[in-house]
Amino acid sequence: MPRSTFYKHRIAFADCDPAQIVFFANYFKWFDTSGFEFFVACGVPPWRDTAQKGGIIGTPLVKATATFVNSATYGEDVVIESWVAEWRTKSFVMRHVARRGDTILAEGEDIRVFAIMDPAQPTRIKAVPIPPAIRALCE
Amino acid sequence: MPRSTFYKHRIAFADCDPAQIVFFANYFKWFDTSGFEFFVACGVPPWRDTAQKGGIIGTPLVKATATFVNSATYGEDVVIESWVAEWRTKSFVMRHVARRGDTILAEGEDIRVFAIMDPAQPTRIKAVPIPPAIRALCE
Amino acid sequence: MPRSTFYKHRIAFADCDPAQIVFFANYFKWFDTSGFEFFVACGVPPWRDTAQKGGIIGTPLVKATATFVNSATYGEDVVIESWVAEWRTKSFVMRHVARRGDTILAEGEDIRVFAIMDPAQPTRIKAVPIPPAIRALCE
Amino acid sequence: MPRSTFYKHRIAFADCDPAQIVFFANYFKWFDTSGFEFFVACGVPPWRDTAQKGGIIGTPLVKATATFVNSATYGEDVVIESWVAEWRTKSFVMRHVARRGDTILAEGEDIRVFAIMDPAQPTRIKAVPIPPAIRALCE
Repeated sequence: MPRSTFYKHRIAFADCDPAQIVFFANYFKWFDTSGFEFFVACGVPPWRDTAQKGGIIGTPLVKATATFVNSATYGEDVVIESWVAEWRTKSFVMRHVARRGDTILAEGEDIRVFAIMDPAQPTRIKAVPIPPAIRALCE
Repeated sequence: MPRSTFYKHRIAFADCDPAQIVFFANYFKWFDTSGFEFFVACGVPPWRDTAQKGGIIGTPLVKATATFVNSATYGEDVVIESWVAEWRTKSFVMRHVARRGDTILAEGEDIRVFAIMDPAQPTRIKAVPIPPAIRALCE
Repeated sequence: MPRSTFYKHRIAFADCDPAQIVFFANYFKWFDTSGFEFFVACGVPPWRDTAQKGGIIGTPLVKATATFVNSATYGEDVVIESWVAEWRTKSFVMRHVARRGDTILAEGEDIRVFAIMDPAQPTRIKAVPIPPAIRALCE
Repeated sequence: MPRSTFYKHRIAFADCDPAQIVFFANYFKWFDTSGFEFFVACGVPPWRDTAQKGGIIGTPLVKATATFVNSATYGEDVVIESWVAEWRTKSFVMRHVARRGDTILAEGEDIRVFAIMDPAQPTRIKAVPIPPAIRALCE
């Protein structure tokens, strides 16, 4: 079983929509935050530090999927578990499970790459192969 | 080819993240808005009107997928095309394509249901079969 | 000194803008969440429960002000302290201070009312006098 | 009367909260976008271009105030008018009015500075005097 980390969030009034439940896109945001905190917990420096040195600016998504199993609302606590399910050459797969207590609220799967600012087009980004040093920290 | 509608959004500074590009979860938000506008364009009343009468409160997602093809940044215009790709008994599939001019930025696929407030648990929601009157308006 | 409560938030990548710092409007969101959690901590039921009975649907803002003292970025923890600075007949004043450790990041002042759904216009809201039972719980 | 610009936004389902109305912090986001579009309309390059050259990275807020006059909900169009009400030595005052048709929804006042990345602390920002060339474009 790969290493996993947990990120907790108290659901805010503003996270919910007129149907009184969490607006679904917030799960994607929380999965992203949980994935970021996974790297930090593994000892990877925050992207702003690596970006300063012309390095990794983040792990942009190639594909994101989520299934929504149970609804949740404000004042409830959601805990996201995140881990790297698969390392490929140029991309990696993260999985996320959002739970309220024992109840699964949503499950996510991301395909992500590591990116740097594109030297050829400074306002665009560019994927690079998985940095071995980062992978080693996360396994 | 099913009916499709177009939703335009000028990308805001606040839509972008420290990597200078649109934070990916915003595409899910825009797909959702575009899907809502699809129903409005088809002549379906806004959910707040149907909800007032104990009816549909929205079309919550069972599953959402997006692939991210090209990045975009603030000051650029994104146009989302949305349509219902498939009507099932209790759910339906929406597809979305986000473009900047001719460049595809992202593509999405939602599996959604129609929902009402759950009479048995007033703070939860409940799926209902596809309302034929709504489907008829959208085909 | 009136009662105050504390709300903690780990700043997310997605909370930050292309200037690498928290997008200012997020402070308003966090102040709102902190204010909601203040009422919960005082023993006031969540608005969805009171709303179910035709009662309070929330505490919408008449005016919101914030001053931004120091910037913050993702991976940092912000703690918001919130309290009711003044109770008036039909409105009340909340104050919020956001800190990272001992550093003040932002300060906020809200003028808010208690609201119900407007019986005359079901999609609009209507202010009501401060409910004495709620005020009693919060002092 | 100073130059003003207009920014239009179709209110999204996700812009609204469980009270069925626009979550107030979104007005601050829209005022910010409208203010950004003001500079673009005046011929100022987008901040990502100036930031590339070590220049302005944006106009962070020192203080933001908004008053909320009427509520609005999804499917409605809001138009924000924005202008610079006052140029000071190191800061400037922007005003914003959000309207739905002729109905004023909210009014905002920002005190802002022009900022660059702080050379001494690369993850922090630093205010600079009002650039005369930018001011000249906007008057």
